[in-house]
Amino acid sequence: MKYKGTVVVTLKDGIFDPQGAAVRGSLLALGYPQVVDVRMGKNIVLYLDVPSKEEALSLLDEMARRLLANPVTETYMVSVEEWCSRP
Amino acid sequence: MKYKGTVVVTLKDGIFDPQGAAVRGSLLALGYPQVVDVRMGKNIVLYLDVPSKEEALSLLDEMARRLLANPVTETYMVSVEEWCSRP
Repeated sequence: MKYKGTVVVTLKDGIFDPQGAAVRGSLLALGYPQVVDVRMGKNIVLYLDVPSKEEALSLLDEMARRLLANPVTETYMVSVEEWCSRP
Repeated sequence: MKYKGTVVVTLKDGIFDPQGAAVRGSLLALGYPQVVDVRMGKNIVLYLDVPSKEEALSLLDEMARRLLANPVTETYMVSVEEWCSRP
């Protein structure tokens, strides 16, 4: 069975985000003073071939801890849905 | 009123994703043969000071089109929620 997992990795509060600051600067220069703050994160989509949703979730959590997120500076959220067509 | 907007930017299907391929290679090397494909995207959180949710949404859509996503290679999804404490 195929599952589509999503791991969203975000910087912890208080960790300086130079990329977000640069995007905010660009948005201000483009005429968007309403933008108070910008935080950049990663949206990682993983297609898995595993027998169950529970296994997909625990695998995603393990991969996020071991490789996808840096536990010192980042937090992550994991979600999963069934998938049939891809890849 | 403060709103927390999220813009998720993902590569269109068929666009080669070298970063995703590299992550998949690392996951295979770590012992996860269940991973069929990996696609990397961006999760951009923007804190806005605007009077209404509708205005926040249309502003986010405009910023995504003008700066955050490349319309040739990427698609984006926008969402918004009320926010009070930050920054």
